[in-house]
Amino acid sequence: MAAKINEDLLKERKKCVFDVQELTYYLDGGVQATENRRKLEDRVLSTKGLLDEIPEEYLSHKEKYENAIRKAVMFYRAMQKAADPNLSEQDKATAAYRSLLSSAVFKDNSPFALQLAMFIPAIVGQADEEQRKYWLKRASNFEIIGTYAQTELGHGTFIRGLETTATYDPKTEEFILHSPTLTAYKWWPGSLAHTANYCVVMAHLYINGKSCGIQPFMVQLRDEDTHLPLPGIKLGEIGAKLGFNTVNNGFLGFEQHRIKRDRMLMKNAQVLKDGTFKRSLNSKLTYGTMVYVRVMIVNGMANQLARVATIAIRYSAVRRQSQLKPDEPEPQILDYVTQQHKLFIAIASSHAISLNAKWLWSLYNRVTKDLEKGNTDDLPELHALACCLKAVTTSDTATMSERCRTSCGGHGYMLSSNLPQIYGLITAACTYEGENTVLMLQTARSLVKAYEQAQSGKPLSPTMAYLSEKSTGKQKWTNTVDGIIQGFRKVAVGKISAAVACIKKYRSKGFCPEDAWNKSSVQLVAASEAHCRAVILSTYKSEVERTTSTLSEPLRRVLYQLVELYAVYWTLEKLGDLLLYTSISEGDVLQLRDIYEELLEKIRPNAVGLVDAFDFRDEILNSTLGAYDGRVYERLMAEALKSPLNAEPVNQSFHKYLKPFMQGKL
Amino acid sequence: MAAKINEDLLKERKKCVFDVQELTYYLDGGVQATENRRKLEDRVLSTKGLLDEIPEEYLSHKEKYENAIRKAVMFYRAMQKAADPNLSEQDKATAAYRSLLSSAVFKDNSPFALQLAMFIPAIVGQADEEQRKYWLKRASNFEIIGTYAQTELGHGTFIRGLETTATYDPKTEEFILHSPTLTAYKWWPGSLAHTANYCVVMAHLYINGKSCGIQPFMVQLRDEDTHLPLPGIKLGEIGAKLGFNTVNNGFLGFEQHRIKRDRMLMKNAQVLKDGTFKRSLNSKLTYGTMVYVRVMIVNGMANQLARVATIAIRYSAVRRQSQLKPDEPEPQILDYVTQQHKLFIAIASSHAISLNAKWLWSLYNRVTKDLEKGNTDDLPELHALACCLKAVTTSDTATMSERCRTSCGGHGYMLSSNLPQIYGLITAACTYEGENTVLMLQTARSLVKAYEQAQSGKPLSPTMAYLSEKSTGKQKWTNTVDGIIQGFRKVAVGKISAAVACIKKYRSKGFCPEDAWNKSSVQLVAASEAHCRAVILSTYKSEVERTTSTLSEPLRRVLYQLVELYAVYWTLEKLGDLLLYTSISEGDVLQLRDIYEELLEKIRPNAVGLVDAFDFRDEILNSTLGAYDGRVYERLMAEALKSPLNAEPVNQSFHKYLKPFMQGKL
Repeated sequence: MAAKINEDLLKERKKCVFDVQELTYYLDGGVQATENRRKLEDRVLSTKGLLDEIPEEYLSHKEKYENAIRKAVMFYRAMQKAADPNLSEQDKATAAYRSLLSSAVFKDNSPFALQLAMFIPAIVGQADEEQRKYWLKRASNFEIIGTYAQTELGHGTFIRGLETTATYDPKTEEFILHSPTLTAYKWWPGSLAHTANYCVVMAHLYINGKSCGIQPFMVQLRDEDTHLPLPGIKLGEIGAKLGFNTVNNGFLGFEQHRIKRDRMLMKNAQVLKDGTFKRSLNSKLTYGTMVYVRVMIVNGMANQLARVATIAIRYSAVRRQSQLKPDEPEPQILDYVTQQHKLFIAIASSHAISLNAKWLWSLYNRVTKDLEKGNTDDLPELHALACCLKAVTTSDTATMSERCRTSCGGHGYMLSSNLPQIYGLITAACTYEGENTVLMLQTARSLVKAYEQAQSGKPLSPTMAYLSEKSTGKQKWTNTVDGIIQGFRKVAVGKISAAVACIKKYRSKGFCPEDAWNKSSVQLVAASEAHCRAVILSTYKSEVERTTSTLSEPLRRVLYQLVELYAVYWTLEKLGDLLLYTSISEGDVLQLRDIYEELLEKIRPNAVGLVDAFDFRDEILNSTLGAYDGRVYERLMAEALKSPLNAEPVNQSFHKYLKPFMQGKL
Repeated sequence: MAAKINEDLLKERKKCVFDVQELTYYLDGGVQATENRRKLEDRVLSTKGLLDEIPEEYLSHKEKYENAIRKAVMFYRAMQKAADPNLSEQDKATAAYRSLLSSAVFKDNSPFALQLAMFIPAIVGQADEEQRKYWLKRASNFEIIGTYAQTELGHGTFIRGLETTATYDPKTEEFILHSPTLTAYKWWPGSLAHTANYCVVMAHLYINGKSCGIQPFMVQLRDEDTHLPLPGIKLGEIGAKLGFNTVNNGFLGFEQHRIKRDRMLMKNAQVLKDGTFKRSLNSKLTYGTMVYVRVMIVNGMANQLARVATIAIRYSAVRRQSQLKPDEPEPQILDYVTQQHKLFIAIASSHAISLNAKWLWSLYNRVTKDLEKGNTDDLPELHALACCLKAVTTSDTATMSERCRTSCGGHGYMLSSNLPQIYGLITAACTYEGENTVLMLQTARSLVKAYEQAQSGKPLSPTMAYLSEKSTGKQKWTNTVDGIIQGFRKVAVGKISAAVACIKKYRSKGFCPEDAWNKSSVQLVAASEAHCRAVILSTYKSEVERTTSTLSEPLRRVLYQLVELYAVYWTLEKLGDLLLYTSISEGDVLQLRDIYEELLEKIRPNAVGLVDAFDFRDEILNSTLGAYDGRVYERLMAEALKSPLNAEPVNQSFHKYLKPFMQGKL
């Protein structure tokens, strides 16, 4: 697999009209950020033994886990060694923002993933000063391995429904943790099964028979020396899943398990020795962590979609199939307009989602600072945004990722393409950290409230301000990005108004508010989606405008083409809504179809350049179809030959079963 | 796991207003068909050792294969033993039509699947009388195991692009099979890797340097005694995939491999000893097999969707989550209207697809009979229908199956739910046996042709006859199923007309016909879809009308509700098209939303009854979430405990890696 690069890819790269390197710098946030990222990737990936010789899909479930632990330890040390001590925390964060470095090592994620993603943030967000000092040191140095357990076998999104109890015993100054039923078992946390020895557990606190709400407890699960589960603690893994199989998701049950009083994390509420319960003044502070996780999810979607688009577009440039014209060779499938229709929107969406994530991230930082000053004014808006952005971007990314995969035909079905595994990671995000429909309905609740406020003339938060714009009849439609943004806002207003009318209708028929809400919920979700589409599109456009002024003209032009493609694509997808709620005409639609076809044509020569600019190393793509050199068929065969089944010409099952069977003896 | 049934499911079953048994008989095609199916299932599934003790997802790739071979042999013998000798072939076929019996044994399909699905049909369709007699006997008795190899590493849908050559050598009266390049390797056929010892190979025939097209050859791959690949034959498996991992998909390359002249299957073309080539008169006969396979795929989609709906709806009746009203217990998630919106359409779609498959099947039989008489008139229509029905039903089923899966939240992500694996089988159908976009464009070609014929007053085939209906302005819209069918036809006409106009536009700009076609192809696919939606809906309605007259009134009412749900669902989904091409008004839309919400409410009490009527045994559902008794949580835990990782409290990787790592020694 030496330097030779597929001829078609070479030609594609010559065709590209902009500077690929410049786009990479833009995506990373500057030359320095790109260099820092690349340096880290170089150093870590040169560690011997870190990459699998036999792809993990050939191992048994147990072997996969053991192999992942072997690599996790090695990967963590390599990351430590490779870290540049001169970089600021901010620089490190920027370098990590677009990195999928751990994907090169773990196709299906690391068994240590929860340490950084949940355990440490839980300590930071919920432990008091003294606790934080102690636990943070141990966790950061990996003296202990931790996870975070909230979800139970019978309980997910609805936190108040959790059954695990923590009963305070003032005599011994201990909490007694207990799982009263099977459905109370904690279920899902990564690394919980056999890896973690500590865990932050959310449980329902009772003092003197009185409920004190759901509180966090730091629980030691396993003996630090023997790793055996402590008495009163039942641990195990929950079994094989669609993805995340090397993450070691586990279950956890308690049998009257006692822990000391100081193991309750007491930043937001305290239990004194005598059992006095002190609630923190601002219970909204815990919202912060939830929003933070959702911002990270949105950003992750942008990165994964970029990876999927890279694989599918490089493959489509290499793959030749069917005949367009007699006597001409089979064309690259990327020349089929139907293929462009499936793929180019994935590039634009990755940009759109990435910029929205960055924007949401700065909003989050601003609101968090306000919160620290006791100002919670903007929290509801942030919450409503994080809910719908998480839901819509995970859902869009899942759909587009599958479309990219199937656009690679049968070869996209091979695990060596890595497309099925990436989809496994993406689709999980549709149900974890808030199931998408539940989140959409939370945003809908804010929207209905804002809509009613607008009716009574009250001021609205910035992203919902358009709800109070006076609509004087149907404004004239224009086929521009701004016109389309206006259109999507009109749709949102129309749908919210329709949903509100629907609620009223059911109320007037005698239904209680909850039933009326439930009966209108299909429309409420649609309203929420329309709002979110308006937000994503307007943010995408304004962030491109804000951040590209210093870029070269050819690159800027291409980036704007993607904005336009994104806007027109969604207009054509959501035509029913626009025809109902705006003045768009059949003529406008015909013109938009022309514009769309023209945009595909303009983007076509830059398609490979656009995905090259995502700058994923081959190890990170981890795909036979997506490698930089485009040697698709050689790689497919080379990977196939790694299957242990191919080590012998005749499998033992022939002698044992097939032969006697064919001879009629079985 | 004894008899106790979940209380909520018990209540659901009491609520059902129709006779579940009656619906089962209707779906099976009569009491007798149901009884035959059940008897076969009972007998086969009582075979000891046929069902896995340890779920196959815990095995290594190699172990999965070996276990599948062990079971395949046993399953085949059990099927032989269980077969009722008194049943006619027709009765057997009817009993098999809705059966997913082999799914109870193979979550990921059988390594013998290709014997019946492709190898034997290839012999029947392509061997001459003498050949057929010889090979059919050997294949039917499983004296040999065969497969069918067409697709190559570099070539799929486009058959003329195949690179494998068969060069006739008149001196020795042999064909020389050869793979001139890596991309010429056969790639994908099930059982090819290590199971089959014979294979029907499609290769490009050359005689005296002259191409004689793609022809079928019966090739022995492995020695019947030792199972070693014959000289000049390279075999192996293609590696792990998203699904079908126990099917043993393989690759096959030839190095100047010689076979005797009589190994070419000569029904449709002959090579005489001296190298004279005789082409068969009717080369269209081979279309038959392709259409047959597509009919089977459509039927398979109906069955798989029924399976998915059963799992998701039973789980939604058992699962309780969140709060609708204060002080009330968490409701069954099936009571959320958003959940009903996701699930009920899956039931209706399974019925719609099943009836369309049966209808297509009788059309296929009629056309096949005509073909035997030399009448090929209706073949183009059959072909156009099979193309778009295969594409739309596989795509819809894939989408709905994923929606059902995610509607089960995190637990749908567990492999023990079986939902991920079923999706793996379904989504494969979107790219195999004709990639969906390619198929949609084939139907589009027929539609454009028919549209042009209609313009010039020529008569059209029945399913396209509506293209010639004179539209006098926009007809008045009615919110009835018939009105909706008319509407979808109008949309199809509008979209075909728009696509044709688009082609003309590009032609007038100087593009050649092929480029103009390509540039219009996004719209052509949309036109094809609109046509297919009209066909599916009208067939669904007319087949329900035709087949339900003897049913009891309560059942008929429910079946018509599903028809209505299906019609209204798709109207609301495709509103943009309808608003553009029909006279549907905003008022109609508001009313349709009301109707839709009312239908969900009407179907709600019968939801569990509707899926119970699919009558899948627990072994066939193979799902912790879907079992008849609804003991979801007990089953989830019981399955988890089967994971080999749970056999030991401490995994060896702790001592080897984790402990030294946490102690800072690694």
